[in-house]
Formats: sequence, structure tokens, C-alpha cells
Amino acid sequence: MCEANVYMLDENGEKKLVMEAVDKIIPGTDEVFLENIFGERKTVKARIKEMALVDHKVLLQRVAAEENNAG
Amino acid sequence: MCEANVYMLDENGEKKLVMEAVDKIIPGTDEVFLENIFGERKTVKARIKEMALVDHKVLLQRVAAEENNAG
Repeated sequence: MCEANVYMLDENGEKKLVMEAVDKIIPGTDEVFLENIFGERKTVKARIKEMALVDHKVLLQRVAAEENNAG
Repeated sequence: MCEANVYMLDENGEKKLVMEAVDKIIPGTDEVFLENIFGERKTVKARIKEMALVDHKVLLQRVAAEENNAG
């Protein structure tokens, strides 16, 4: 199976696992919807920074409050 | 290997293959950078609409000229 682990990169440049075995990813304006192969769903305030599918890795970047207003 | 095929959804709702065997995907503001396992690279005027990793499918949506100015 080719699901990926999704990590969030925080302000300090540290990666934290958000969800593993993610199948579906749907980006919104300031958020990203995730669904994994177990049917778990999560929506996080972030945008996709980078995906490396062969490594099974998706990196998200947190959306800061100020950025939401910047248009 | 867990690379995906990347398709573009056009204004008529039709899917066209943009690149196959894509490993790296890096979204920008109005464009998406793609790199496949053969080292081919492409940047397309689009945003990510949906990803289904288990199906090896990434769907892009073309960014229309009007939308570029709306933000």
C-alpha cells in the first residue's frame, strides 16, 4: 500500500507526526483534510509544504494567524 | 515504489495526464512543482485538488487567470 505519513513542521522547524497511513489529502485555503486507510479523518490548519511519495512522507506547514489575514 | 500519476482537471471536467511516476510535489501559490522518479521536472499553473495515494492518483485543478487576481 502506498499511503504516507503526514508531518507538521512547526515554527521551530521541528517535525511532528500528524497522522500515519494517510490515503486521501484534500487541501483547502488554510487547511488540509486528511483521511487514512483506517478511515480516521482530520482537518488541520496548515498548507502542504512538500511531498515525497517514494519516501511515504508529506510535510505540512502550520498556517499562522497573521498569514490568514494577509490575503 | 509509491509514486503517483498526476492529472490535470480542466474547465470541462476532463482529466489529462500531466506526469506519471511522480515522487516529489511542492505546491506554490499558483503553481505546483512536480518531479518524477526519472528525474523529470515540471511546474504547472495549478493547485492540488485531491490526492488518493493508495490509488496512486493526484488531481490538479488549473488556476484560471481571473483567479490569480482575485486573491
